[in-house]
Amino acid sequence: MSDPRTDVSIAPLGQVLTLTSNGLNTRFHAIWLRDNAWDDETRAPGNGQRLVALRDIPADTTISAASVEGGRLSVTFTPENKTVEYDINWLIANAYDRPAPQGRGWLNSGVEAWRSDLMSAIPVGNFEELSKRGDALKDWLALVTKYGFGKFVNGPVENGALFKIVDLFGFVRDTNYGKLFDVRTEVNPTNLAFTGLGLQAHTDNPYRDPVPSVQVLYCLESSAAGGENMVVDGFAAAQRLRAESEEYFNVLADHCARFEYAGEDDVCLTSRRPMIDLAPDGELIGIRFNNRSLAAVTDVPFDKMDTYYAAYRRFGEIIDDEAMEVTFRLDPGEGFVVDNTRVLHARKGYSGEGTRWLQGCYSDKDGLRSTYDAIVRATRKEAAE
Amino acid sequence: MSDPRTDVSIAPLGQVLTLTSNGLNTRFHAIWLRDNAWDDETRAPGNGQRLVALRDIPADTTISAASVEGGRLSVTFTPENKTVEYDINWLIANAYDRPAPQGRGWLNSGVEAWRSDLMSAIPVGNFEELSKRGDALKDWLALVTKYGFGKFVNGPVENGALFKIVDLFGFVRDTNYGKLFDVRTEVNPTNLAFTGLGLQAHTDNPYRDPVPSVQVLYCLESSAAGGENMVVDGFAAAQRLRAESEEYFNVLADHCARFEYAGEDDVCLTSRRPMIDLAPDGELIGIRFNNRSLAAVTDVPFDKMDTYYAAYRRFGEIIDDEAMEVTFRLDPGEGFVVDNTRVLHARKGYSGEGTRWLQGCYSDKDGLRSTYDAIVRATRKEAAE
Repeated sequence: MSDPRTDVSIAPLGQVLTLTSNGLNTRFHAIWLRDNAWDDETRAPGNGQRLVALRDIPADTTISAASVEGGRLSVTFTPENKTVEYDINWLIANAYDRPAPQGRGWLNSGVEAWRSDLMSAIPVGNFEELSKRGDALKDWLALVTKYGFGKFVNGPVENGALFKIVDLFGFVRDTNYGKLFDVRTEVNPTNLAFTGLGLQAHTDNPYRDPVPSVQVLYCLESSAAGGENMVVDGFAAAQRLRAESEEYFNVLADHCARFEYAGEDDVCLTSRRPMIDLAPDGELIGIRFNNRSLAAVTDVPFDKMDTYYAAYRRFGEIIDDEAMEVTFRLDPGEGFVVDNTRVLHARKGYSGEGTRWLQGCYSDKDGLRSTYDAIVRATRKEAAE
Repeated sequence: MSDPRTDVSIAPLGQVLTLTSNGLNTRFHAIWLRDNAWDDETRAPGNGQRLVALRDIPADTTISAASVEGGRLSVTFTPENKTVEYDINWLIANAYDRPAPQGRGWLNSGVEAWRSDLMSAIPVGNFEELSKRGDALKDWLALVTKYGFGKFVNGPVENGALFKIVDLFGFVRDTNYGKLFDVRTEVNPTNLAFTGLGLQAHTDNPYRDPVPSVQVLYCLESSAAGGENMVVDGFAAAQRLRAESEEYFNVLADHCARFEYAGEDDVCLTSRRPMIDLAPDGELIGIRFNNRSLAAVTDVPFDKMDTYYAAYRRFGEIIDDEAMEVTFRLDPGEGFVVDNTRVLHARKGYSGEGTRWLQGCYSDKDGLRSTYDAIVRATRKEAAE
């Protein structure tokens, strides 16, 4: 509900409208209001798509009249002589007359950085419950969105079962590795090459552009000791790097690294993107970290390369710090999803004999977020009815 | 071949090595050289993946000796006491001791902006020739990479034939619209809703993140007059905007727009990304432009919103300028691919009676570039043998 005491005023030339509520002023430009009208001529009643382009709205649009009644704002635009009604709550929710975010490396609302203490509260979904696509799925997707990873348990132990997880929130991203890839390890102490060579935590496929933004790993066999999975929040690591040294954070954010995978005859994947990816206003939106596929970095000026390598080294040390990592074991029918633009993953070493068989696949997080937001919207509608 | 007169010197503390050839100096840091060694202990001989992380390389790495012989540079590192050989041509090709790019909105090498004069030289591939996966495919993919779009002709006229085009270079990106979507128009002059309502040129699905970076449109029926397809180079439009007004270019690059598609019960896709997307060093890497799915822009400070809307309007005017557009007609068995992060597309109006049936699907350009680069690499190997 909007405050019944909301007042409205128009600046002399009709270019700006001000809503006043509880002594707070919120300003809107005439052109922004007109472009964001929700009448049936501006927006398609069914799907909400805008029916007009900005070229259809006069450049000299101003406001000739405005009034407030019952939580709704009525605005008349000149020269169209068109009157449009707005929900004042929608306007306040979409107000832009507010301080801009300061500094770099801030996180969007709904995203929360974490360190090893998340180990006591790992997000876990039960496959049977998730499959009902109700509250359990909503709650689990909320945590996956917040933390960038989530474990699931109690899934079927069968080839390709990971696709049933992807079906819950999105679509498989097919690549040259196939729709799924097998991670099989035969643990045999006489062959050290297949034992615990600790893989440094990494994001997958940084040489791809766009990078697959979700990865699913699913356990089908696990009779070997060890081999725990480990995840690290790349956002938390980047924020810690910045707290230690803005210079280090900035040099990794301001210059592109290069990544490459050209290990098969018909594959030559390359990318040129920074290890720390920021939106233009400083939001932390992505991490790329993978020693195996980092190519020669050639986009850092000579006089900054020393700093770049020092920052890259320190970033790796932070990622390797046990205080940052969450570990968990996967048994058959269990697995996890990660936001591959944020959370790094690794496998701990094995010991003893046995086998381990995981299947992995990629997906994208726009689908995951859409599924979550659509469930939230449906829940709200039900509550309102 | 490297110049036989290449000399090498080491700075006193061993932290920098300088190659001198024809009076030109090119400097490399010890840590960069060590990290980019190609010996079998550093890089896997088979697939070229790096076997060590930076943590395995001492932070105080310096160079104790270096010599040049027969196009190869030999470097000994301390404290590892490890000697590595480099191909001097590889070093020169990956040198970073060069001026950094200046200004914003520059294009990567291999990418070329175009306007309507490309109409006389539209890249066209013949499906039968492309399917041989040889020079014809290489040449066509080179043009698609350069211009961000390419037409193809002589494909089979059958449901789903567009997948055969995607098979040439990559993988279908499945979405909530399905693996493919149908664009059917029944032209009937008594129903104006289905006639020539000019769609403004746009990029598809800017509300997705990551956005599908390749789109394929494939014609199966076309008995109606009109309905030409039109494409506009968003990079050329952005560069023209910058030439007219750096302020306009910057305001669209420095602030995130918001996009939304929430028109189905189980879909709620939203994104927060700029209309003009730049790499941290100013490379122009993406355009998002779609009046239908632009949501309320709320990440522009109040005192810049007027400029933002003026810039958005001018950007649209440039996109609408016929001097920017290339048009072509699609007959059954013909279609085109676009780089959906760069090239905008639209459909011209219809007239007369008849039907028009197109199928569309999405893919990603990392696969397309990988396929092209792999063919080029194979061609070079053949030439060298």
